[in-house]
Amino acid sequence: MRMSELSGRSGVPIPTIRFYLREGMLAAGELTSPNQGSYDESHVRRLKLIRALIDIGGLSVAGARAVLDHLDSGDDGDGPGELATLGVVQFALTARRDPTADEAVRTATEMVEQLLERHGWQVCGANPARDSLVDVVAVLSRLGQHDVLGLLDGYARAAQELAEREVRLVQDRQAIEDRAEGVVMVSVLGDALLAALRRLAQENLIAARLAPGRDVALTAPH
Amino acid sequence: MRMSELSGRSGVPIPTIRFYLREGMLAAGELTSPNQGSYDESHVRRLKLIRALIDIGGLSVAGARAVLDHLDSGDDGDGPGELATLGVVQFALTARRDPTADEAVRTATEMVEQLLERHGWQVCGANPARDSLVDVVAVLSRLGQHDVLGLLDGYARAAQELAEREVRLVQDRQAIEDRAEGVVMVSVLGDALLAALRRLAQENLIAARLAPGRDVALTAPH
Repeated sequence: MRMSELSGRSGVPIPTIRFYLREGMLAAGELTSPNQGSYDESHVRRLKLIRALIDIGGLSVAGARAVLDHLDSGDDGDGPGELATLGVVQFALTARRDPTADEAVRTATEMVEQLLERHGWQVCGANPARDSLVDVVAVLSRLGQHDVLGLLDGYARAAQELAEREVRLVQDRQAIEDRAEGVVMVSVLGDALLAALRRLAQENLIAARLAPGRDVALTAPH
Repeated sequence: MRMSELSGRSGVPIPTIRFYLREGMLAAGELTSPNQGSYDESHVRRLKLIRALIDIGGLSVAGARAVLDHLDSGDDGDGPGELATLGVVQFALTARRDPTADEAVRTATEMVEQLLERHGWQVCGANPARDSLVDVVAVLSRLGQHDVLGLLDGYARAAQELAEREVRLVQDRQAIEDRAEGVVMVSVLGDALLAALRRLAQENLIAARLAPGRDVALTAPH
């Protein structure tokens, strides 16, 4: 198919497709004339994957490119395949780091160490999620939200249960490349799924518990 | 304290503080001379809250302003206070919407309806999280990730359990303004907490299950 059809099928505007081609995130089409390429289903699928990572997963273009490069390389790196994929994804997802290193950060670092120990989690010091967790814990301490910090263990247990299902899903996939893509999906799109479901569960419960019997609904702010 | 000390205490650069003052997100200081204001602890705290919403929660400046306006107004709106706060927060957090309305979106809309019914969740049609969920489900269908969609009910049960703890936390707070702030904290910073804990749980399990006995660690992509 031509570029215009590729754009129509994928929902991605032509200038954006050209950008992805230049950046090497999308393979060049087969040349049918000096200025025209021919594209196939693999291009449609790749464009949908790029948009999922960026629009739904919130990755930067550079982050999405790092994840795609890894998926394309088929390279296992030093460790086993899934762990290498997880590393690429987690570094691509890294939150901005709060630069204030104060007493709250030191206390938060210790709280996170203890939490990891309580749950028996072995995670390396380089995992950017550890810094993200320290940052959120420090912010909550600085804002005096100690009851919110009391939710940490419950959140950790939920994260553990979900991770068990996710790892089983990855292990059940046969092809190496499908397993790598599975790691990307449950990491990036799993976040989006869980965030949306949390909001819906919150609305349901807040409406039911705090206003039982009243006909209330969530409304857009005026 | 002066502006320079406020900047040092909060870690927010002076030009950014000036921006928040102009935008009305931070109350003006008490004037000590025509060009100089005096600030107190409430200003330090407010700046930390603004940065938490933007840096950790990922809200836009406009989104953060809407949340702060609501917290400042003390206005309950039409419904009970917590539901009004949740509405403001959820609309501020709205993900960008994938504009492609195709067969996958129609199927996803139906899947989400059925999921809500299975879990007995009453949520209004205007909740932007419903659209976000439909979008992610549609993207996963288009990418053929049907096993990931099989995780939906497990995610929903986890979301329900967490929401129950969160609502109890809000109910246990006495002052109306603390309850509203509690809704903001568990919605915005709860997402960040859970995302970080998910990544740590994933690393721990992937390292243990897929490479038992091997001394492996998550590494930054080369």
